Amino acid sequence: MAVHVGALPWVPPFAQGNVRDLRVRWALEEAGIAYVERLVSVDDQKSAAYRALQPFGQVPTFEQGDMRLFESGAIVLHIAEQSEMLLPADAVARERAKTWMFAALSSIEPYLMHLAQIDLFSAGEEWAKLRRPGAIADIQKRFGELAKWLDGRNYLEDEFTAGDLLMATVLRIPRHTTLVEDEPVLAQYKKRCEARPAFKRALDAQLATFAKHEPKAAR
Amino acid sequence: MAVHVGALPWVPPFAQGNVRDLRVRWALEEAGIAYVERLVSVDDQKSAAYRALQPFGQVPTFEQGDMRLFESGAIVLHIAEQSEMLLPADAVARERAKTWMFAALSSIEPYLMHLAQIDLFSAGEEWAKLRRPGAIADIQKRFGELAKWLDGRNYLEDEFTAGDLLMATVLRIPRHTTLVEDEPVLAQYKKRCEARPAFKRALDAQLATFAKHEPKAAR
Repeated sequence: MAVHVGALPWVPPFAQGNVRDLRVRWALEEAGIAYVERLVSVDDQKSAAYRALQPFGQVPTFEQGDMRLFESGAIVLHIAEQSEMLLPADAVARERAKTWMFAALSSIEPYLMHLAQIDLFSAGEEWAKLRRPGAIADIQKRFGELAKWLDGRNYLEDEFTAGDLLMATVLRIPRHTTLVEDEPVLAQYKKRCEARPAFKRALDAQLATFAKHEPKAAR
Repeated sequence: MAVHVGALPWVPPFAQGNVRDLRVRWALEEAGIAYVERLVSVDDQKSAAYRALQPFGQVPTFEQGDMRLFESGAIVLHIAEQSEMLLPADAVARERAKTWMFAALSSIEPYLMHLAQIDLFSAGEEWAKLRRPGAIADIQKRFGELAKWLDGRNYLEDEFTAGDLLMATVLRIPRHTTLVEDEPVLAQYKKRCEARPAFKRALDAQLATFAKHEPKAAR
């Protein structure tokens, strides 16, 4: 049964390569599962039909017959359960990989999204200016702890898993800063994950869709 | 093999009943799995030994023989996979429940933690005062969308799952406000989840530990 992935036709350049369907595309590429894009317009996102699929009106979504899912983390987990490329067979290694999936989304991503709110969505606002140093300090603390864990390792655990896939995409969020580059261990780790052919195919697919649907006004 | 759950001996009243080991205790109670507390002092949290178990120095942790996990979401998922009380047997229902686990942690919790940062950890700071209306508006939008989904339902899906367990604990975060009560559907849903005997046992256990370890200065 065909897999359909909900994605956006176009977003402004600052968001390209970071929209969360990238995670799902990457997981599908790692697992060797073909998929079809389901492009969702801004009007679609507001429709009752779409809200029945995604209550918050966002992307990505995943549809395969009766299986209709949302949340990039849940979709990546669902795909990962079908492929040892993403979740090892060993019971302990499997649960460790899932621990890192949640760590990426709960212990790292919120700090980076807070900075994105400050720098990208509230730029110029007084609160954003006042809050920025504290937000940066929080990220530096977390990044230091993560770098300490990763020091001497290629991946979060012995081999690449869905935990690394989510962590690497999360580390892409502050690309308008040098926060990742300031921790060489993190920068090398991110580069190692992004060097995977499956990542490149996923990124190319997202960017190709945006290029195809670029509005005239943005050219 | 005994299950050990990492928890804090004491926290100030504003955090009691919201520390994330509550989620793990609740899941274990639903699943009928006995556990032993492993209390972690502030000094322990900074130690290399503890950082090997939890790289960010937080609670909860889960240990059962070789299985050593962190992240409340990952631990609840690990427990849920052992009990149909938390994850139904049907393949679609099971993945839907996991979708809601991630939705609670990624699509609702960060907005509430942002408000907690503003009201509880940065109270009186100028940025917090300026940012608060925007943070409240973001929560109201999300709560409205969630209430729309829950309207006419007892739980997020047909029956109570680990998704509801996480969502209910997330909805406890803004208890210093009336944000949940302002959406009667959400308030009733939260109450329905918290009426479960397993929740009460979990909450009582966390609070009993805090009572036992209350510092003299706080009395």
